[in-house]
Amino acid sequence: MDEFALIEQIKKKVPRTRYAALGIGDDAAVLKAVRGGDLVVSTDMLVEGVDFILKKLSSEKIGRKALAVNLSDLAAMGAEPLAFVISIGKPRHASAQWVLRFYDGLLTLAREFRVDCIGGDLSGARELSVSITVFGKTRRPVTRGGAEPGDWIAVTGRLGGSILRHHCDFTPRVREGIFLAKKSAATAMIDISDGLCQDLTHILRASGVGAALDLERIPISADAKKLSCGNKAKALGRALSDGEDFELLFTVPPRCKLALEPEWRRRFPKVPLTWIGRIERETPRIRWMLHGKLVPAPKFLKKGFGHFR
Amino acid sequence: MDEFALIEQIKKKVPRTRYAALGIGDDAAVLKAVRGGDLVVSTDMLVEGVDFILKKLSSEKIGRKALAVNLSDLAAMGAEPLAFVISIGKPRHASAQWVLRFYDGLLTLAREFRVDCIGGDLSGARELSVSITVFGKTRRPVTRGGAEPGDWIAVTGRLGGSILRHHCDFTPRVREGIFLAKKSAATAMIDISDGLCQDLTHILRASGVGAALDLERIPISADAKKLSCGNKAKALGRALSDGEDFELLFTVPPRCKLALEPEWRRRFPKVPLTWIGRIERETPRIRWMLHGKLVPAPKFLKKGFGHFR
Repeated sequence: MDEFALIEQIKKKVPRTRYAALGIGDDAAVLKAVRGGDLVVSTDMLVEGVDFILKKLSSEKIGRKALAVNLSDLAAMGAEPLAFVISIGKPRHASAQWVLRFYDGLLTLAREFRVDCIGGDLSGARELSVSITVFGKTRRPVTRGGAEPGDWIAVTGRLGGSILRHHCDFTPRVREGIFLAKKSAATAMIDISDGLCQDLTHILRASGVGAALDLERIPISADAKKLSCGNKAKALGRALSDGEDFELLFTVPPRCKLALEPEWRRRFPKVPLTWIGRIERETPRIRWMLHGKLVPAPKFLKKGFGHFR
Repeated sequence: MDEFALIEQIKKKVPRTRYAALGIGDDAAVLKAVRGGDLVVSTDMLVEGVDFILKKLSSEKIGRKALAVNLSDLAAMGAEPLAFVISIGKPRHASAQWVLRFYDGLLTLAREFRVDCIGGDLSGARELSVSITVFGKTRRPVTRGGAEPGDWIAVTGRLGGSILRHHCDFTPRVREGIFLAKKSAATAMIDISDGLCQDLTHILRASGVGAALDLERIPISADAKKLSCGNKAKALGRALSDGEDFELLFTVPPRCKLALEPEWRRRFPKVPLTWIGRIERETPRIRWMLHGKLVPAPKFLKKGFGHFR
């Protein structure tokens, strides 16, 4: 199947869009005017061998992950996803059928979050790479730079061991992110892709604050425990630094914390919400607490998920 | 230099943006509301070995080309460029210094067309790939589907032989595209990336029309002639099918043709405008004319620039 035949097959799969005045098939797409908020734009690239192993993961799962990581970025801004464009570098070892199944995975998640595929590009390559740019809207983008001393630090879900399966089948916290932005509950927010410590440091630097983390409160995933063969310190190290959790890490002013908890449990009964520490006036670094006492940085803390090999 | 240090260096290079309420450095960028037109979005990926040879081309030129091909897509819609995001798959053989010089080339062109870099992503990879998504605006997007029987077919510049140098140092026809859209002169438009014949066929299919091309009127570039060593038929074949010309190919109703010519010469004195044929009522195919007589398809007509290897 040549380039144009494959694009025709893809066009047949992609449903009619709601947000595009002009979709796939021209030099560019036209996005209808966005009402009731600013346009939020995020771009993320997945590369074979770095973000996934082609032989280990089905094409559907890779397609799903390619969109999911981008939706996770929008979630971290508290934005509602609208549409996306996608560029694929296609090597010979990924057949046309592979690409079509990749779109199946991608479009299933797109339907779930009502986000439109409005265009793309397909190029030859020696390794598979996928770059998605996603558009969303929000009235109040939640940046990394709004954390204040005294704010509580919270995280969704459980962390670590993502490599076992979570990194390719997680559900992006889109609804949770929108809720936190609308309620004006979150002062700063990020999605955990590089590991809790590293991503918290991004918030601290952008906000010019420090943090105290309660080690006994870090929610450790079952997979992190499994991978650590019962070694609790190792499992904690994984939860703090494995990366690719795609959970939301955010800060909440003390006055909002009490009201947030019951509403969270009502809206997201299946999504754990854990308070793991407080923002401090200190310089951008993390202090570690155990049962209220200052302790040294935990063992098995890795340097975070590196995107460079 | 690690990932974060490199991103810091890049941030220093990128000027303050005019269109972004929030630029590089968060989970996503926020684009200010676009007034006076629809948002046009285009995405294009360049891959090492397909779109450029790393050792043959300087990093500045590759950076320039990566943005230029995207601006050319906007030009083909008649859209005014506003901003872009960029994803880079960075192999080890492209050093941090290489990436910084790549940005120099990219940002020089960005300044020339007043388009803002508002965000991006950097990933490890084995081969270099660059994916840019560019945003523009227009009141009247010029699609591929508006050509009518009787329309004149025009092309900017001279065609063929792009591989010698034009493919990496062309100036995208942004101003020309905006002019053609504003004047409502162009009924259909495309930029020539796959070769004149193939891209004209895209217009014919989208518009449901045919075309008659005057072979003696095709503007052949000096480089196409050079590569053909004096063989005129070969040079013509190159002009018709080489690809990567990034010139504008468009159709104009007869009533607009006369008025367009003097204004074009006044505004774009250095840019050749050539009338190469007419749109016909026939099915989507090209008929070839020589001095007013029907002739067979020219020799040396290649199948167009293929993006798959």
